[in-house]
Formats: sequence, C-alpha cells, structure tokens
Amino acid sequence: MSREPGLLDEETVNARANEKARKRKAARDRMLATKTIEKGLLIVHTGKGKGKSTAAFGLAARAVGNGLKVGVVQFVKGVWKTGEREVFARFPELVEIRAMGEGFTWETQDRARDIAAAEAAWEMSEAMMADPSNAMVILDELNIVLRYGYLDLDRVLSALTNRREDLHVVVTGRNARPELIEVADLVTEMTLVKHPFRAGVKAQIGIEF
Amino acid sequence: MSREPGLLDEETVNARANEKARKRKAARDRMLATKTIEKGLLIVHTGKGKGKSTAAFGLAARAVGNGLKVGVVQFVKGVWKTGEREVFARFPELVEIRAMGEGFTWETQDRARDIAAAEAAWEMSEAMMADPSNAMVILDELNIVLRYGYLDLDRVLSALTNRREDLHVVVTGRNARPELIEVADLVTEMTLVKHPFRAGVKAQIGIEF
Repeated sequence: MSREPGLLDEETVNARANEKARKRKAARDRMLATKTIEKGLLIVHTGKGKGKSTAAFGLAARAVGNGLKVGVVQFVKGVWKTGEREVFARFPELVEIRAMGEGFTWETQDRARDIAAAEAAWEMSEAMMADPSNAMVILDELNIVLRYGYLDLDRVLSALTNRREDLHVVVTGRNARPELIEVADLVTEMTLVKHPFRAGVKAQIGIEF
Repeated sequence: MSREPGLLDEETVNARANEKARKRKAARDRMLATKTIEKGLLIVHTGKGKGKSTAAFGLAARAVGNGLKVGVVQFVKGVWKTGEREVFARFPELVEIRAMGEGFTWETQDRARDIAAAEAAWEMSEAMMADPSNAMVILDELNIVLRYGYLDLDRVLSALTNRREDLHVVVTGRNARPELIEVADLVTEMTLVKHPFRAGVKAQIGIEF
C-alpha cells in the first residue's frame, strides 16, 4: 500500500477519517460519562473583545426559551437596548430587567453618584439572587464597577459564593478581578482580534458593537 | 495642597475622577465622530472558549428585536436547541432557521455524508445571503466545515466578500481560517480561561455550554 497521501483513493480517505471520528466520539463519550455534578454555575465573560454582554443576553434568551426565569441587573446604563428589551417583552412572566439608572457610563462625570448607583444596583442583585423563582441572574458590567472600586469586593464575592446551589449567575465586563475568576466555574475571555472602528465604520442598529 | 493620596478628602478624589471622566468622554466623542461608514459587517466568533454561538444567537435575537430579518444556517446539527428556537418562534415572520441536518457532529462517522451535508448547507447560505429581505445571516459553525476542508474556501470567501453591501454576516466556530479573518470586519476570539467540565460538572438545560 502506498504511503503517499496524494495517491490514496477517496474510499480510503473516507474510511480513515471515519475511523478517526469513531475514536474521537468514544473518547468524548467516556469524558462526558465522568461529568455528573449538576449545580448552578458562576459564569464570567471578560476581556476587551466584543460579545461579553451579547453572549450573556444569548444565555438569558435561551433560558427563557427553556421556560426558566431570569433576572437582569445592568450596572452600566444603556448596554441592553431596544432589541434585547423587545425580545424579553415576549416573555413578560419570565424576565425582570433592571437598568440601575445613572450608573457608570461614558456620559457620567460624577463619581459620588456612580458609587450610589452601584450600591443600589448591588442591592437589587442580592434581591434577585435571593428570589427562589429565578433560575439565572445576569449581572451585566459588574466587572467595571468592581474595577473602579465602587463596591466592596469581599461583600460581592461572599454573596456570589454563598448563592443558592442551583442558581446560575453570569457576570460580564472587561477587567474581571482575579479574585472573581478564582471563584467562578466558567470563565471566557473575549479577545479583540479585529475591530471595524479601526476602519472608520459606525456603530449600527442590530449590531451596536 | 498635599500630594499624599491618603490625605485627600472625598471631595478632591471625586473632583479629580470627574475631570478624568470628562476628558475620557471628550476623547471618545472625538473618536466616534470620525466613524461615519455604514455597511454590513462580516463578523467572526472563533476560539476554543464558550460563547461563540451564544453571542451569535444574541446578535440574531437583538436584530429581530429591532424588527430586522435574520436567516440562520447551522452547519453542525444540534447546536441551537429548544431555547433558541422557542425565542425565535415568537418572531416567526423575522427568522428562518435551517439545521442542515446530518452535518458534522460528534456523532457523525461518515465523511462522504458530511461533505454532502456541508454542500447543501452552503447552498442554503448563498440563498439566504442573496435574499434582499435578510438584514443578517448567521453561518453557525461554518469554521468547522472549512477547517475539515469540506467546502472550497475560495468559493466561500468569494461569496462572503461579494455579499450585498448592507448585509451583516456572522460566522462562528473554532479554528477560523486566517483567510477568513483577513477579509472580516470584526473578529472576536473566545478564549477558555476556566471550564466546569474540569470540575466534573454536567452540561445543563438553560446553559448547555
């Protein structure tokens, strides 16, 4: 038999690929069989890339699509806009979304007011996490507030780690604190590879990157 | 006036923070004023981390929430499940979602069938991109199919770069081809920082990571 790949016929190529796929599936099945713990996850989306809040919105939308109740607290005003709200409006009994008003935005230039808004948003977050009807709570842009030191980190970590066992919590925002990553179950860093702003492209409805 | 930060009173700290925020906002406003091009974006979500398809789903859901029409082609079966479908079912006039059946999955062990499925999915993709009523087309897990060489790369790149000027296209999947990244407008790499499988945690409804 030839060892030259160029000389293999299609049938041999397919047979080898199929054998490799069989082994891959067997390995994956063995791996999955060892995963037996069910619990609420502490999920963190961080990094400078796009998609942190969008993926959190995707998780929330998927959860409500599965009939689960979701609470959303926005620590930065204006991140979740018309599109998101319109989707959730179709599941009014399953979503509570709270834009904690005047929290840090690019428009804000009042640190004392920012701290007060962060405090109010955190109190709302604790209430949503304590509500046993919520299956998931999204703390959108909490990382930014923690980064600026507007909330006591220990207080936040304590509430997150002592949450109800079956509650999923999703925290977003760049510059996640290492202490938060340490206690999280699933952490994804969104890395910017290429951004259209560099090419002079404007933010647009439906994308709003 | 003291230079010791510890000795600054709260008012001074706030005044300095506010001045810094004013400058940051002014710089950002200047930057945004230079961004004037409106066009459809070619967006790529790649990397080994979670959130690639979830963020694409989030973009699609936001778009339909904004009243825009979206087409979805799934190159890998079973990625978009009940939750996603249930959300889109609330916007039946705005979403067309096509699971191109027997395409590559962990379950598949038939390379010839995979290639045929990839071909059919690509034809569906071209039809959706050609439909002027679609504002956005999601090509979910196309990267995997390209990685396996199941589709001709030049044919795909040519269709993507020659698409309608105002059409947004989102391509997901790990191992994006460098040639695709080259022609894309916005590329995010989702990097795995921490994964619960490592701690023995099972995939769950509403999360399905």
